[in-house]
Amino acid sequence: MLSTMNDDPLSIARITRQGAGPHGDSAEVVTWTESGPRRSSYAEVGREAARLAHALRELGVTGDQRVATFMWNNAEHMAAYLAVPSMGAVLHTLNIRLFPEQLVYVANHAEDHVVLVDHTLLPLFASLLPEMKTVRHAVVVGGDASALEAPPGVQVHSYADLLAGRPDQFDWPELDERSAAAMCYTSGTTANPKGVVYSHRSIYLHSMQVCMTDGMNLAQQDRALAVVPMFHAMSWGLPYAAFMVGASMIMPDRFLQPEPLVEMIAAERPTMAAAVPTIWQGVLTELDKRPRDISSLHEVVVGGAACPPAMMRTFEEQHGITVVHAWGMTETSPLGSLARPPAGVTGEERWAYRASQGRLPASVEGRLVGDDGNLLPWDGQSVGELEVRGPWVAKAYYGDDDPEKFHDGWLRTGDVGYLTPDGFLHLTDRAKDVIKSGGEWISSVELENQVMSHPAVAEAMVIGVPDEKWSERPLVAVVLHEGKTTDAAELREFLTGRVAHWQLPEYWTFITEAPKTSVGKFDKKRLRKQHADGDLDVVRLA
Amino acid sequence: MLSTMNDDPLSIARITRQGAGPHGDSAEVVTWTESGPRRSSYAEVGREAARLAHALRELGVTGDQRVATFMWNNAEHMAAYLAVPSMGAVLHTLNIRLFPEQLVYVANHAEDHVVLVDHTLLPLFASLLPEMKTVRHAVVVGGDASALEAPPGVQVHSYADLLAGRPDQFDWPELDERSAAAMCYTSGTTANPKGVVYSHRSIYLHSMQVCMTDGMNLAQQDRALAVVPMFHAMSWGLPYAAFMVGASMIMPDRFLQPEPLVEMIAAERPTMAAAVPTIWQGVLTELDKRPRDISSLHEVVVGGAACPPAMMRTFEEQHGITVVHAWGMTETSPLGSLARPPAGVTGEERWAYRASQGRLPASVEGRLVGDDGNLLPWDGQSVGELEVRGPWVAKAYYGDDDPEKFHDGWLRTGDVGYLTPDGFLHLTDRAKDVIKSGGEWISSVELENQVMSHPAVAEAMVIGVPDEKWSERPLVAVVLHEGKTTDAAELREFLTGRVAHWQLPEYWTFITEAPKTSVGKFDKKRLRKQHADGDLDVVRLA
Repeated sequence: MLSTMNDDPLSIARITRQGAGPHGDSAEVVTWTESGPRRSSYAEVGREAARLAHALRELGVTGDQRVATFMWNNAEHMAAYLAVPSMGAVLHTLNIRLFPEQLVYVANHAEDHVVLVDHTLLPLFASLLPEMKTVRHAVVVGGDASALEAPPGVQVHSYADLLAGRPDQFDWPELDERSAAAMCYTSGTTANPKGVVYSHRSIYLHSMQVCMTDGMNLAQQDRALAVVPMFHAMSWGLPYAAFMVGASMIMPDRFLQPEPLVEMIAAERPTMAAAVPTIWQGVLTELDKRPRDISSLHEVVVGGAACPPAMMRTFEEQHGITVVHAWGMTETSPLGSLARPPAGVTGEERWAYRASQGRLPASVEGRLVGDDGNLLPWDGQSVGELEVRGPWVAKAYYGDDDPEKFHDGWLRTGDVGYLTPDGFLHLTDRAKDVIKSGGEWISSVELENQVMSHPAVAEAMVIGVPDEKWSERPLVAVVLHEGKTTDAAELREFLTGRVAHWQLPEYWTFITEAPKTSVGKFDKKRLRKQHADGDLDVVRLA
Repeated sequence: MLSTMNDDPLSIARITRQGAGPHGDSAEVVTWTESGPRRSSYAEVGREAARLAHALRELGVTGDQRVATFMWNNAEHMAAYLAVPSMGAVLHTLNIRLFPEQLVYVANHAEDHVVLVDHTLLPLFASLLPEMKTVRHAVVVGGDASALEAPPGVQVHSYADLLAGRPDQFDWPELDERSAAAMCYTSGTTANPKGVVYSHRSIYLHSMQVCMTDGMNLAQQDRALAVVPMFHAMSWGLPYAAFMVGASMIMPDRFLQPEPLVEMIAAERPTMAAAVPTIWQGVLTELDKRPRDISSLHEVVVGGAACPPAMMRTFEEQHGITVVHAWGMTETSPLGSLARPPAGVTGEERWAYRASQGRLPASVEGRLVGDDGNLLPWDGQSVGELEVRGPWVAKAYYGDDDPEKFHDGWLRTGDVGYLTPDGFLHLTDRAKDVIKSGGEWISSVELENQVMSHPAVAEAMVIGVPDEKWSERPLVAVVLHEGKTTDAAELREFLTGRVAHWQLPEYWTFITEAPKTSVGKFDKKRLRKQHADGDLDVVRLA
């Protein structure tokens, strides 16, 4: 029996029309500049998107060709977000923080035809362009286009000149909702970056979720400060969601330092914001130095890493701002879960809920898989790897089914933790970092946090090392605070009672500096190699 | 270029799993009874849905067979809402308020195989059952099943007995999201009822919209009082939306009178509610008589008819409750638009926004079509018929494409009004009632309201009558208050300055009683017939 409902596709064009139409005059994109805010109404952004689409057609963009952006969060990037998918092409947001060889790899892998690049990023971009084999056009946004030298076979354009005089309406084609709309590569540390290709359908559904009351609660009344970059998991879905419901957007461009961010908040009065914890730590420090009125902010969504509970409390108690934990990854569009405590929960119990990664919504199915491949119960205790699936979760990488990562429609998240009976996710470690000791799993992160709570310890990294009896046991690498001393036995004694007895580490090493990745995370791969190469001086306690 | 996102279908089963799983213990269905509330946790409702599905399979329900309900809003109806579509069958909610011949028609047209019937509705149902040609099983919910006589070829079952001892888990099949999930017939006044068949996809998307902050704002923290019947446009989507996010539901069963409704609100403390305006008028009157604490209610969604502005103000000023106007119809699932004023709007401007039918969301495209078939601008002035389309809007009736109602994917709503540049819908009349006078449209509703504001007038009905010069002109049929007198000339004088000069009616008639439909609305069809038959005594002013 057929339904009699309309088959109209979910599409970015629908979002573009709604934002630029009914919300065209009431909502705005505020782009931060050296001289303060620059304002574009949603109607203006919509017209710019139409002009950009006409320009891209003239540059030969047809079908599902890739149009890349190498840009900060700003109004022009928003126009590209709308124009490229709405015209049927595929938006490829280049992550400017990847290593140069990774950037070249992804541009070639995606076969980018056009790149839009912010003029402030030309110093970074200029040396990459000659290596991007499929790029035929580079469009410089702002500044002087002639500052970019055109390699053979590539034309360089000025964004303003290219768009000038073009029609500010575009007849967006009707598209299959499962067709590609945008793509984003994950910055794998162990292999080449992998491409996730979002569909019109997945982006539309994800935008609705962002605007659900139990989602990010984004609504027409909001002014959203999108600190999280548009080149990183689509700025967590904020741009499309904001355009869908007519919430205004405040975009920091390249001014991501605590001082301008605080100035932006005080001046533009966002009601909500989204960023990784380190950004917020900087904002708190800046506010301590120079207090400003940030009372417009009601809620701050934090993801990418767990937010220290102390920071959540400081925001709430000193500034009246609720920090909401979210979990996700590029492969999940990215909103996977969000921590809103159940009704009626108060006090410390509420804080415990808020410290979790949150509840998976109806559209994101989850399950826990144990070491033996069996499913584990949602009992608040059993620890396993989280697998998810759903209409905005990837089932493969671009050109790579990657059976290590995807199987039977499920995405192996690489995150390890437990689920409570009421569906809250508590992550305890990354799967590759967890220590598998005699059939039990030891969280490297929890051990690190416990060791780091010792006053003499500046940093602690924990990796699993081979052990004849237990298969793996933890090795703790400790960086001491300058001028402080301690030893393995004292630290082990310190841990007693803080972690389960069987988790107490036997293996210890003292290092002068913790190896870190380009984005400042512990580089456990390097530590493992140092250990394997015999470069570490390891103490073994009885 | 293919997207790499998962193709997992949107489905009622997904909603069932989320409500009965993570929200199973924290959310509940409260069913009102003669002796107060009866409680079922969402986990219990989920288990009951599984038992019901097993029972229906045993009764031979396979594929997309129709399972009808003839029920009030209660926990058992909720179990049927979940079980029937999740098992792949189609839920047909019979509107108990249709005329008996209409009920028989729709059951036969839908080819219902099973009917679940509340025992309190047996007196109404018993005489219908022998006429329902395809029904093989009648399942009596509550009370004594033997009170229902089985016609030849029909088996009568007790719901409790039928479900007893069956497994409380069911392996819901994977379904195409565009397959039929539920159906509901519109109560056409001019022809046989027409069936609207909702898909899993349309219901899922609609549920997300209900839970969007700018939608009905339904969230896990809520307790929703669903006064609007589950047999009427799916209770405006509340049951599925509530189960999707774990909001609790308060269901009045047959206790829809003001006194028990107020008692329910005071006892069960709903945070939001949905009902037609007449229900709320009764609630206000009851509260005046016997004040009760209804302060738990924050928002009340009103649809089905425009809510008198005075009533909206009384709710807000006396009770602190925001009345939110919504517009929709069975063909639109039903949420078409919802009146949340834009940010920053205050005072009388805010009231004007709230009196509108609201803004169409991104998923509901709208356009205004003039008398000549041309599209009209959204200028806040041009009046035309509203047409809509979108993923939860019907494109046909069941077994009937009805080109009068549907064309090119657009639904002719039969509602006439205008749209503002910021997308707010203001309805002024029904298309069939609007008076087309010399190329301009006169709203029959506005004229009626103006005439009824005269102190001598109890009721006024306006229809268009043929006119040689203007093609149509308004005829006003007036019912006077007992003991009051006036005449056509005085009433026309009264209207001067209140409506545009060219709208002043020449044709007047005085009647003792206004013809009304079974649900108490003005029956303009009958008035037109009386006029055509020469039964009305019409005065013509110069």
